[in-house]
Amino acid sequence: MDGKTAAELLTKLRAEKPVIHHITNYVTVNDCANITICAGASPVMAESIEEVEEMVAIAGALVLNIGTLSPGQVDSMLIAGKKANELGIPVILDPVGAGATTLRTKSAFKLTEELLISVIKGNAGEIGTLSGAKATVRGVDSGSLEDDPIVVAMKCSELTGAVVAISGAKDIVTDGKRVLSVENGHAMMGNLSGTGCMAASLSGAFAAVSDDYLESTASALAFFGLCGEKASVYAKGPYSFRTGLCDELYRLKPVELGVDAKVKEINNV
Amino acid sequence: MDGKTAAELLTKLRAEKPVIHHITNYVTVNDCANITICAGASPVMAESIEEVEEMVAIAGALVLNIGTLSPGQVDSMLIAGKKANELGIPVILDPVGAGATTLRTKSAFKLTEELLISVIKGNAGEIGTLSGAKATVRGVDSGSLEDDPIVVAMKCSELTGAVVAISGAKDIVTDGKRVLSVENGHAMMGNLSGTGCMAASLSGAFAAVSDDYLESTASALAFFGLCGEKASVYAKGPYSFRTGLCDELYRLKPVELGVDAKVKEINNV
Amino acid sequence: MDGKTAAELLTKLRAEKPVIHHITNYVTVNDCANITICAGASPVMAESIEEVEEMVAIAGALVLNIGTLSPGQVDSMLIAGKKANELGIPVILDPVGAGATTLRTKSAFKLTEELLISVIKGNAGEIGTLSGAKATVRGVDSGSLEDDPIVVAMKCSELTGAVVAISGAKDIVTDGKRVLSVENGHAMMGNLSGTGCMAASLSGAFAAVSDDYLESTASALAFFGLCGEKASVYAKGPYSFRTGLCDELYRLKPVELGVDAKVKEINNV
Repeated sequence: MDGKTAAELLTKLRAEKPVIHHITNYVTVNDCANITICAGASPVMAESIEEVEEMVAIAGALVLNIGTLSPGQVDSMLIAGKKANELGIPVILDPVGAGATTLRTKSAFKLTEELLISVIKGNAGEIGTLSGAKATVRGVDSGSLEDDPIVVAMKCSELTGAVVAISGAKDIVTDGKRVLSVENGHAMMGNLSGTGCMAASLSGAFAAVSDDYLESTASALAFFGLCGEKASVYAKGPYSFRTGLCDELYRLKPVELGVDAKVKEINNV
Repeated sequence: MDGKTAAELLTKLRAEKPVIHHITNYVTVNDCANITICAGASPVMAESIEEVEEMVAIAGALVLNIGTLSPGQVDSMLIAGKKANELGIPVILDPVGAGATTLRTKSAFKLTEELLISVIKGNAGEIGTLSGAKATVRGVDSGSLEDDPIVVAMKCSELTGAVVAISGAKDIVTDGKRVLSVENGHAMMGNLSGTGCMAASLSGAFAAVSDDYLESTASALAFFGLCGEKASVYAKGPYSFRTGLCDELYRLKPVELGVDAKVKEINNV
Repeated sequence: MDGKTAAELLTKLRAEKPVIHHITNYVTVNDCANITICAGASPVMAESIEEVEEMVAIAGALVLNIGTLSPGQVDSMLIAGKKANELGIPVILDPVGAGATTLRTKSAFKLTEELLISVIKGNAGEIGTLSGAKATVRGVDSGSLEDDPIVVAMKCSELTGAVVAISGAKDIVTDGKRVLSVENGHAMMGNLSGTGCMAASLSGAFAAVSDDYLESTASALAFFGLCGEKASVYAKGPYSFRTGLCDELYRLKPVELGVDAKVKEINNV
């Protein structure tokens, strides 16, 4: 794929404005809601067991993020996720902190085992944990891997059936067969809480207007990273960077994304 | 009424700094807290059943927002609301997503039936749902109405006894007899998560210093909309707009509100 | 102590990047997470009873904030706090709203009685409540004291064994023997929700790299206040002030903190 696909999906996203249902953490939820709007979609946050099935039924994608999970919230995720699976609505999982505590690791595995997940987006430590690789996870930090991230991502994809994205200086996205790298982004994104969560929200938004979750995820990450690059030019620190990042997501024209997306097919893996 | 009333209420609000007790959603709660301060009041968020009666007793208004409701949270709202009713403290309801799920619709009706609500502020779809009109609600989006919003708002006011405000390009506020329109505002407000919630917070703050909830609500909406207009001049996207909006709310002088509030009495309805 | 200690701790903080485990309110949690990153540490928010012991075990400090407490959340705080005590990890308590409701007052006392708290940071009304002084608390406002804040802080320290900080135009920090004043800061900090919570997060971050919690707390408050001063120069209101405050925290060089920290030893108390 090239930038053209990303540009087409962004155009479609802004035209269709799909509802993106989130069951997510209370730390970065506001940024996730706003970034979903900036991208062109419509966020809804709802996690009461009594309403998640009804809510997901009107959604174009379901984003599950375990950043401040509780056993009750995981139950809601399972109920919403099963309904989404039934209706063919893509489910995005951000396994925040998998590997850091038993609750997070077990919950992430439970979600991947009981649901058909379309896209798993995590950092190296989290995806490593889900793939059984040697990973070091410290809190919700990015963690590190002893193994090659491409091998780890492919293994995780094979085990779960999902498109798997590992965020980093160079993002890796794979469906277990094809591997894409996304080289958009800026180091300042690591100084802002919730950039990982926001990337998952955008992956949900792009999945809602695509049938190819490999390409939709790479498109979302290229879009996010490119806006980070643009915001970094005038940011004076993490908060002015956040302001710029979201403003840029709102303003970026599909044609710009088409030209500047740095998505590459990685062969011979 | 004219801008003079709005200006007087803003002056009073900044002098008295009433406590505004919120039981609200976890998505936009930070903006609600901050905007309440920017306007001149003092926010407090408390929802444990063990403390809501005590907390509301020191408040000038109670703001109930069902944006991320749970049955337990609705119970807290009922307990706090009953205490507020007992003490003559105005109760503002923002029925976020009423019409989108059964839980939201039922909870909104329950709150209006068991409590004496002073002000209901919602979008067209939510107020339509509460008034029994033909409304289309999609998630927490604004929804749409087949009927005339003035007729719908008056019907909702008649059914609930509350002052009813429908937000939109032109806000409509009615107590069932008089109808006011507020034409301040800017389209960028629709690109920011939580502007509806913030409008409810401000409606609470203005109600805390007034006995006429029709005029206090129209004043709050004019104040909010005017600051949105001012911020739109230099905003580069939704996040710089939010920064500007809150800064403007803090800076706006009552005399400016008096001059620029676009509140009109609508006769012959 | 002088600014040099503060500068050395900031240097150490940025080198070691300790994990700061928060169990905190949902109103200001995002700012707490981000400010922790801006200072140089790594925040994690986790409150499920199932995981708090495991999470705190990897942390350099535990920050407990009762801003939107529930009895279940207080149980998690007790479990995490006991584990932190066992492991020698400093525990910071922000008793938000102690004195405003029975639940808050009782919970704050319970935490100080059942845990060994390293640092308590509150406003005059909250610390007054914990020390048994005549205090007036209104919601989560700063409250006021009839007694001398130094006497109140020392009394609270004596009762709890903690370093006690009372925030205000002039912050007072004491370990019951020595008393430090911190005169950095700006009035605009009072117009932003969560500056108290952020000060507690920073106190946690500095405690994580120090053995002297009196000096680490004064250093954190000087750092925070100094960045507030810098941001106030170009802020146009509370939201642009927040952006500037966090950007400045990220940018401030230890050497600048060393020069501009206004920490004084108060003798003859």
